[in-house]
Amino acid sequence: MAAGSEIERLIQLLAKLPGLGPRSARRAALVLLKKRDLLLEPLADAMRDAAAAIKTCEICGNLDTASPCAICRDPRRDPHILCVVEDVADLWALERAGVFRGRYHVLGGALSALDGVTPERLNVASLLERVKQGGVDEVILAMNATVEGQTTAHYLMDMLGDRKVTRLAHGVPVGGELDYLDEGTLSAAFKARRSL
Amino acid sequence: MAAGSEIERLIQLLAKLPGLGPRSARRAALVLLKKRDLLLEPLADAMRDAAAAIKTCEICGNLDTASPCAICRDPRRDPHILCVVEDVADLWALERAGVFRGRYHVLGGALSALDGVTPERLNVASLLERVKQGGVDEVILAMNATVEGQTTAHYLMDMLGDRKVTRLAHGVPVGGELDYLDEGTLSAAFKARRSL
Repeated sequence: MAAGSEIERLIQLLAKLPGLGPRSARRAALVLLKKRDLLLEPLADAMRDAAAAIKTCEICGNLDTASPCAICRDPRRDPHILCVVEDVADLWALERAGVFRGRYHVLGGALSALDGVTPERLNVASLLERVKQGGVDEVILAMNATVEGQTTAHYLMDMLGDRKVTRLAHGVPVGGELDYLDEGTLSAAFKARRSL
Repeated sequence: MAAGSEIERLIQLLAKLPGLGPRSARRAALVLLKKRDLLLEPLADAMRDAAAAIKTCEICGNLDTASPCAICRDPRRDPHILCVVEDVADLWALERAGVFRGRYHVLGGALSALDGVTPERLNVASLLERVKQGGVDEVILAMNATVEGQTTAHYLMDMLGDRKVTRLAHGVPVGGELDYLDEGTLSAAFKARRSL
Protein backbone atom coordinates (compact mmCIF):
# COMPACT_ATOMS: atom_id res chain seq x y z
CA MET A 1 0.00 0.00 0.00
CA ALA A 2 1.40 3.32 -1.06
CA ALA A 3 -0.52 5.49 1.36
CA GLY A 4 0.67 6.69 4.73
CA SER A 5 0.26 4.94 8.04
CA GLU A 6 -2.63 7.30 8.89
CA ILE A 7 -4.72 5.68 6.17
CA GLU A 8 -3.63 2.19 7.25
CA ARG A 9 -4.65 2.87 10.82
CA LEU A 10 -7.99 4.31 9.74
CA ILE A 11 -8.67 1.24 7.60
CA GLN A 12 -7.71 -1.16 10.39
CA LEU A 13 -10.05 0.53 12.86
CA LEU A 14 -12.91 0.78 10.36
CA ALA A 15 -12.53 -2.95 9.65
CA LYS A 16 -13.42 -3.64 13.28
CA LEU A 17 -16.93 -2.27 12.77
CA PRO A 18 -19.56 -4.95 12.28
CA GLY A 19 -20.58 -5.15 8.64
CA LEU A 20 -17.23 -3.90 7.33
CA GLY A 21 -14.47 -6.31 6.30
CA PRO A 22 -10.92 -5.36 5.27
CA ARG A 23 -12.04 -4.64 1.70
CA SER A 24 -15.08 -2.53 2.50
CA ALA A 25 -13.13 -0.72 5.24
CA ARG A 26 -10.67 0.37 2.53
CA ARG A 27 -13.53 1.60 0.40
CA ALA A 28 -15.04 3.41 3.38
CA ALA A 29 -11.70 5.06 4.24
CA LEU A 30 -11.38 6.30 0.69
CA VAL A 31 -14.89 7.75 0.68
CA LEU A 32 -14.12 9.43 4.01
CA LEU A 33 -10.93 10.98 2.67
CA LYS A 34 -12.68 12.19 -0.45
CA LYS A 35 -15.59 13.72 1.44
CA ARG A 36 -13.47 15.32 4.11
CA ASP A 37 -15.75 18.27 4.93
CA LEU A 38 -19.02 16.47 4.32
CA LEU A 39 -18.34 13.17 6.06
CA LEU A 40 -14.91 12.62 7.65
CA GLU A 41 -14.90 15.63 9.96
CA PRO A 42 -18.61 15.55 10.88
CA LEU A 43 -18.30 11.83 11.66
CA ALA A 44 -15.21 12.38 13.80
CA ASP A 45 -17.09 15.15 15.63
CA ALA A 46 -20.17 12.96 16.07
CA MET A 47 -18.01 10.21 17.52
CA ARG A 48 -16.32 12.61 19.93
CA ASP A 49 -19.72 14.02 20.97
CA ALA A 50 -21.17 10.56 21.46
CA ALA A 51 -18.16 9.40 23.47
CA ALA A 52 -18.56 12.42 25.73
CA ALA A 53 -22.34 12.50 26.03
CA ILE A 54 -23.65 8.94 26.00
CA LYS A 55 -23.99 7.16 29.33
CA THR A 56 -25.33 3.79 30.41
CA CYS A 57 -28.57 4.18 32.37
CA GLU A 58 -27.97 3.15 35.98
CA ILE A 59 -31.47 1.70 36.23
CA CYS A 60 -32.12 -0.23 33.02
CA GLY A 61 -28.79 -0.35 31.15
CA ASN A 62 -30.05 1.63 28.13
CA LEU A 63 -27.70 4.10 26.42
CA ASP A 64 -28.73 7.75 26.60
CA THR A 65 -27.35 11.23 27.19
CA ALA A 66 -28.61 11.10 30.77
CA SER A 67 -28.78 8.51 33.51
CA PRO A 68 -31.54 7.55 34.35
CA CYS A 69 -32.41 7.40 30.66
CA ALA A 70 -35.36 9.09 28.97
CA ILE A 71 -37.47 5.93 29.19
CA CYS A 72 -36.82 5.42 32.91
CA ARG A 73 -37.59 9.09 33.56
CA ASP A 74 -40.75 9.19 31.44
CA PRO A 75 -43.73 9.26 33.84
CA ARG A 76 -46.08 8.16 31.03
CA ARG A 77 -44.29 4.81 30.76
CA ASP A 78 -45.84 2.11 32.90
CA PRO A 79 -43.38 1.09 35.65
CA HIS A 80 -45.43 -2.02 36.41
CA ILE A 81 -44.40 -3.86 33.26
CA LEU A 82 -40.74 -4.67 32.75
CA CYS A 83 -39.43 -5.91 29.41
CA VAL A 84 -36.11 -7.73 29.72
CA VAL A 85 -33.89 -7.67 26.61
CA GLU A 86 -30.41 -9.01 25.90
CA ASP A 87 -29.03 -5.90 24.29
CA VAL A 88 -29.63 -2.18 23.74
CA ALA A 89 -30.17 -2.99 20.05
CA ASP A 90 -33.18 -5.11 21.04
CA LEU A 91 -34.55 -2.24 23.12
CA TRP A 92 -34.18 0.06 20.10
CA ALA A 93 -35.93 -2.49 17.89
CA LEU A 94 -38.90 -2.71 20.27
CA GLU A 95 -39.04 1.09 20.52
CA ARG A 96 -39.11 1.32 16.73
CA ALA A 97 -42.00 -1.13 16.70
CA GLY A 98 -43.69 1.22 19.19
CA VAL A 99 -45.55 -1.70 20.74
CA PHE A 100 -44.42 -1.39 24.34
CA ARG A 101 -45.11 1.44 26.78
CA GLY A 102 -43.53 -0.01 29.94
CA ARG A 103 -39.92 0.07 31.17
CA TYR A 104 -36.95 -1.99 30.07
CA HIS A 105 -34.10 -3.92 31.60
CA VAL A 106 -31.03 -4.60 29.47
CA LEU A 107 -29.15 -7.77 30.48
CA GLY A 108 -26.06 -6.99 28.42
CA GLY A 109 -25.98 -10.42 26.77
CA ALA A 110 -27.25 -13.95 27.19
CA LEU A 111 -26.04 -16.87 29.28
CA SER A 112 -23.52 -19.00 27.43
CA ALA A 113 -21.51 -21.82 28.94
CA LEU A 114 -19.38 -21.87 25.80
CA ASP A 115 -18.40 -18.19 26.05
CA GLY A 116 -18.22 -18.28 29.86
CA VAL A 117 -21.13 -15.86 30.31
CA THR A 118 -22.50 -16.56 33.79
CA PRO A 119 -25.43 -14.75 35.49
CA GLU A 120 -22.86 -12.68 37.41
CA ARG A 121 -21.62 -11.17 34.16
CA LEU A 122 -25.12 -10.05 33.17
CA ASN A 123 -27.37 -7.44 34.80
CA VAL A 124 -29.37 -10.18 36.52
CA ALA A 125 -28.88 -9.08 40.14
CA SER A 126 -30.13 -5.56 39.35
CA LEU A 127 -33.15 -7.05 37.56
CA LEU A 128 -34.07 -9.24 40.55
CA GLU A 129 -33.54 -6.24 42.84
CA ARG A 130 -35.82 -4.08 40.70
CA VAL A 131 -38.53 -6.73 40.71
CA LYS A 132 -38.10 -7.39 44.43
CA GLN A 133 -38.54 -3.69 45.26
CA GLY A 134 -42.09 -4.20 44.15
CA GLY A 135 -44.53 -2.55 41.83
CA VAL A 136 -43.70 -4.88 38.93
CA ASP A 137 -46.77 -6.83 37.83
CA GLU A 138 -45.39 -8.48 34.75
CA VAL A 139 -41.93 -9.34 33.45
CA ILE A 140 -41.73 -9.85 29.69
CA LEU A 141 -38.71 -11.95 28.73
CA ALA A 142 -37.91 -10.65 25.23
CA MET A 143 -34.78 -12.71 24.69
CA ASN A 144 -33.63 -13.77 21.24
CA ALA A 145 -35.08 -17.07 20.04
CA THR A 146 -31.61 -18.64 20.14
CA VAL A 147 -30.33 -21.41 22.41
CA GLU A 148 -28.53 -18.83 24.58
CA GLY A 149 -31.54 -16.52 24.67
CA GLN A 150 -33.93 -19.30 25.62
CA THR A 151 -31.51 -20.65 28.26
CA THR A 152 -31.38 -17.17 29.75
CA ALA A 153 -35.18 -16.89 29.68
CA HIS A 154 -35.54 -20.22 31.48
CA TYR A 155 -32.98 -19.23 34.07
CA LEU A 156 -34.71 -15.89 34.71
CA MET A 157 -38.12 -17.58 34.91
CA ASP A 158 -36.75 -19.79 37.69
CA MET A 159 -35.22 -16.83 39.52
CA LEU A 160 -38.35 -14.68 39.24
CA GLY A 161 -40.37 -17.24 41.20
CA ASP A 162 -44.15 -16.98 41.09
CA ARG A 163 -44.46 -13.63 39.38
CA LYS A 164 -46.28 -13.15 36.10
CA VAL A 165 -43.63 -13.85 33.50
CA THR A 166 -44.38 -13.81 29.78
CA ARG A 167 -42.39 -14.29 26.59
CA LEU A 168 -42.83 -13.10 23.01
CA ALA A 169 -44.92 -15.29 20.72
CA HIS A 170 -43.20 -17.54 18.21
CA GLY A 171 -44.70 -17.73 14.76
CA VAL A 172 -44.58 -16.79 11.11
CA PRO A 173 -42.88 -13.37 10.69
CA VAL A 174 -45.23 -10.82 9.12
CA GLY A 175 -44.47 -10.82 5.40
CA GLY A 176 -42.71 -14.18 5.73
CA GLU A 177 -43.28 -17.07 3.35
CA LEU A 178 -43.95 -20.53 4.82
CA ASP A 179 -41.73 -22.08 2.21
CA TYR A 180 -38.66 -20.31 3.59
CA LEU A 181 -39.31 -20.91 7.29
CA ASP A 182 -37.52 -23.49 9.39
CA GLU A 183 -39.40 -26.43 10.89
CA GLY A 184 -39.14 -25.08 14.44
CA THR A 185 -40.88 -21.83 13.56
CA LEU A 186 -43.53 -23.55 11.47
CA SER A 187 -44.22 -26.06 14.19
CA ALA A 188 -44.46 -23.29 16.82
CA ALA A 189 -46.78 -21.25 14.59
CA PHE A 190 -48.94 -24.30 13.94
CA LYS A 191 -49.28 -25.24 17.60
CA ALA A 192 -50.10 -21.66 18.60
CA ARG A 193 -52.73 -21.22 15.85
CA ARG A 194 -55.66 -19.00 16.70
CA SER A 195 -59.26 -19.09 15.62
CA LEU A 196 -60.44 -16.32 13.34
CA MET B 1 -35.77 5.77 19.14
CA ALA B 2 -35.16 6.31 22.82
CA ALA B 3 -31.53 7.37 22.58
CA GLY B 4 -30.24 10.92 22.37
CA SER B 5 -29.67 12.91 19.24
CA GLU B 6 -25.93 12.22 19.53
CA ILE B 7 -26.55 8.55 18.75
CA GLU B 8 -28.98 9.44 15.96
CA ARG B 9 -26.42 11.73 14.36
CA LEU B 10 -23.68 9.10 14.67
CA ILE B 11 -25.93 6.49 13.04
CA GLN B 12 -26.92 8.84 10.21
CA LEU B 13 -23.30 9.64 9.39
CA LEU B 14 -22.16 6.01 9.67
CA ALA B 15 -24.95 5.03 7.28
CA LYS B 16 -23.31 7.20 4.62
CA LEU B 17 -20.27 4.91 4.53
CA PRO B 18 -20.28 2.48 1.63
CA GLY B 19 -21.13 -1.01 2.84
CA LEU B 20 -23.22 0.22 5.78
CA GLY B 21 -26.98 0.66 5.50
CA PRO B 22 -29.26 2.17 8.14
CA ARG B 23 -29.51 -1.16 9.97
CA SER B 24 -25.81 -2.00 10.03
CA ALA B 25 -24.98 1.63 10.89
CA ARG B 26 -27.09 1.20 14.01
CA ARG B 27 -25.25 -1.98 14.89
CA ALA B 28 -21.91 -0.25 14.25
CA ALA B 29 -22.88 2.72 16.44
CA LEU B 30 -23.79 0.35 19.24
CA VAL B 31 -20.49 -1.51 19.00
CA LEU B 32 -18.66 1.85 18.99
CA LEU B 33 -20.49 3.01 22.12
CA LYS B 34 -19.80 -0.28 23.87
CA LYS B 35 -16.12 -0.30 22.99
CA ARG B 36 -15.54 3.35 23.79
CA ASP B 37 -11.86 3.12 24.77
CA LEU B 38 -10.93 0.35 22.36
CA LEU B 39 -12.69 1.53 19.23
CA LEU B 40 -14.74 4.74 19.39
CA GLU B 41 -12.02 7.08 20.62
CA PRO B 42 -9.13 5.54 18.62
CA LEU B 43 -11.28 5.69 15.47
CA ALA B 44 -12.22 9.33 16.11
CA ASP B 45 -8.52 10.09 16.60
CA ALA B 46 -7.54 8.19 13.46
CA MET B 47 -10.11 10.15 11.49
CA ARG B 48 -8.87 13.47 12.86
CA ASP B 49 -5.26 12.47 12.09
CA ALA B 50 -6.14 11.38 8.58
CA ALA B 51 -8.13 14.56 7.92
CA ALA B 52 -5.12 16.61 9.01
CA ALA B 53 -2.35 14.58 7.38
CA ILE B 54 -3.62 13.17 4.12
CA LYS B 55 -3.17 15.25 0.98
CA THR B 56 -3.90 14.73 -2.68
CA CYS B 57 -0.66 14.36 -4.66
CA GLU B 58 -0.30 17.39 -6.96
CA ILE B 59 1.35 15.25 -9.64
CA CYS B 60 -0.65 12.02 -9.84
CA GLY B 61 -3.74 12.53 -7.66
CA ASN B 62 -2.84 9.75 -5.19
CA LEU B 63 -3.63 10.23 -1.49
CA ASP B 64 -0.62 10.39 0.82
CA THR B 65 0.79 12.28 3.79
CA ALA B 66 2.96 14.30 1.43
CA SER B 67 2.59 15.91 -1.97
CA PRO B 68 4.23 14.76 -4.24
CA CYS B 69 3.28 11.32 -2.93
CA ALA B 70 5.72 8.53 -2.02
CA ILE B 71 5.32 6.90 -5.44
CA CYS B 72 5.99 10.11 -7.37
CA ARG B 73 9.03 10.81 -5.16
CA ASP B 74 10.44 7.27 -5.34
CA PRO B 75 13.48 7.39 -7.70
CA ARG B 76 13.34 3.59 -8.16
CA ARG B 77 9.95 3.86 -9.85
CA ASP B 78 10.19 4.14 -13.61
CA PRO B 79 8.97 7.59 -14.74
CA HIS B 80 8.77 6.41 -18.36
CA ILE B 81 5.69 4.24 -17.81
CA LEU B 82 2.48 5.88 -16.70
CA CYS B 83 -0.46 3.82 -15.48
CA VAL B 84 -3.76 5.74 -15.68
CA VAL B 85 -6.45 4.63 -13.24
CA GLU B 86 -9.94 5.92 -12.49
CA ASP B 87 -9.65 6.01 -8.74
CA VAL B 88 -7.17 5.89 -5.85
CA ALA B 89 -8.73 2.54 -4.90
CA ASP B 90 -7.55 1.14 -8.24
CA LEU B 91 -4.04 2.46 -7.60
CA TRP B 92 -4.07 0.72 -4.23
CA ALA B 93 -5.29 -2.51 -5.82
CA LEU B 94 -2.45 -2.47 -8.36
CA GLU B 95 0.07 -1.67 -5.61
CA ARG B 96 -1.22 -4.66 -3.62
CA ALA B 97 -0.73 -6.83 -6.68
CA GLY B 98 2.83 -5.48 -6.77
CA VAL B 99 2.93 -5.87 -10.53
CA PHE B 100 3.76 -2.33 -11.59
CA ARG B 101 6.92 -0.33 -10.89
CA GLY B 102 6.17 2.83 -12.86
CA ARG B 103 4.20 5.95 -11.93
CA TYR B 104 0.45 6.51 -11.77
CA HIS B 105 -2.09 9.07 -12.84
CA VAL B 106 -5.44 9.12 -11.07
CA LEU B 107 -8.29 10.50 -13.23
CA GLY B 108 -10.73 10.83 -10.38
CA GLY B 109 -13.53 9.00 -12.19
CA ALA B 110 -14.64 7.96 -15.64
CA LEU B 111 -16.44 9.80 -18.41
CA SER B 112 -20.19 9.48 -18.12
CA ALA B 113 -22.71 11.37 -20.21
CA LEU B 114 -25.45 10.18 -17.85
CA ASP B 115 -23.76 11.60 -14.74
CA GLY B 116 -22.46 14.67 -16.57
CA VAL B 117 -18.80 13.70 -16.12
CA THR B 118 -16.92 15.51 -18.90
CA PRO B 119 -13.16 15.41 -19.53
CA GLU B 120 -12.90 18.79 -17.79
CA ARG B 121 -14.11 17.25 -14.54
CA LEU B 122 -11.40 14.58 -14.65
CA ASN B 123 -7.62 14.98 -14.35
CA VAL B 124 -7.24 14.66 -18.10
CA ALA B 125 -5.51 17.99 -18.80
CA SER B 126 -2.80 17.23 -16.22
CA LEU B 127 -2.31 13.77 -17.75
CA LEU B 128 -1.86 15.18 -21.25
CA GLU B 129 0.49 17.81 -19.85
CA ARG B 130 2.57 15.14 -18.06
CA VAL B 131 2.81 13.08 -21.25
CA LYS B 132 3.56 16.16 -23.37
CA GLN B 133 6.42 17.18 -21.11
CA GLY B 134 8.13 14.08 -22.42
CA GLY B 135 9.91 11.10 -21.01
CA VAL B 136 6.80 8.92 -21.08
CA ASP B 137 7.32 5.88 -23.31
CA GLU B 138 4.14 4.00 -22.51
CA VAL B 139 0.73 4.90 -21.14
CA ILE B 140 -1.19 1.99 -19.63
CA LEU B 141 -4.92 2.67 -19.53
CA ALA B 142 -6.04 0.65 -16.51
CA MET B 143 -9.68 1.71 -16.57
CA ASN B 144 -12.45 -0.49 -15.23
CA ALA B 145 -13.93 -2.87 -17.79
CA THR B 146 -17.23 -1.00 -17.63
CA VAL B 147 -18.92 1.05 -20.34
CA GLU B 148 -17.75 4.28 -18.68
CA GLY B 149 -14.23 2.95 -18.17
CA GLN B 150 -13.91 1.80 -21.75
CA THR B 151 -15.37 5.06 -23.08
CA THR B 152 -12.77 6.94 -21.07
CA ALA B 153 -9.99 4.67 -22.37
CA HIS B 154 -11.07 5.26 -25.98
CA TYR B 155 -11.22 9.01 -25.41
CA LEU B 156 -7.75 9.05 -23.84
CA MET B 157 -6.35 6.88 -26.64
CA ASP B 158 -7.55 9.48 -29.14
CA MET B 159 -6.09 12.33 -27.11
CA LEU B 160 -2.73 10.65 -26.60
CA GLY B 161 -2.13 10.52 -30.35
CA ASP B 162 0.58 8.23 -31.66
CA ARG B 163 2.18 7.28 -28.34
CA LYS B 164 2.44 3.70 -27.15
CA VAL B 165 -0.83 3.13 -25.33
CA THR B 166 -1.74 -0.23 -23.82
CA ARG B 167 -4.65 -1.61 -21.82
CA LEU B 168 -5.01 -4.47 -19.35
CA ALA B 169 -5.79 -7.90 -20.81
CA HIS B 170 -9.33 -9.23 -20.63
CA GLY B 171 -9.75 -12.87 -19.73
CA VAL B 172 -10.67 -15.48 -17.18
CA PRO B 173 -9.94 -14.21 -13.63
CA VAL B 174 -7.37 -16.38 -11.85
CA GLY B 175 -9.35 -18.84 -9.75
CA GLY B 176 -12.49 -18.14 -11.78
CA GLU B 177 -14.78 -20.83 -13.12
CA LEU B 178 -15.82 -20.69 -16.77
CA ASP B 179 -19.33 -21.70 -15.80
CA TYR B 180 -19.85 -18.49 -13.86
CA LEU B 181 -18.32 -16.08 -16.39
CA ASP B 182 -20.32 -13.83 -18.65
CA GLU B 183 -20.22 -14.28 -22.43
CA GLY B 184 -18.20 -11.11 -23.01
CA THR B 185 -15.36 -12.25 -20.76
CA LEU B 186 -15.38 -15.77 -22.17
CA SER B 187 -15.38 -14.49 -25.71
CA ALA B 188 -12.51 -12.06 -24.94
CA ALA B 189 -10.51 -14.83 -23.23
CA PHE B 190 -11.13 -17.18 -26.15
CA LYS B 191 -10.06 -14.66 -28.79
CA ALA B 192 -6.90 -13.74 -26.85
CA ARG B 193 -5.90 -17.37 -26.24
CA ARG B 194 -2.17 -18.03 -26.14
CA SER B 195 -0.13 -21.03 -27.19
CA LEU B 196 1.43 -23.06 -24.41
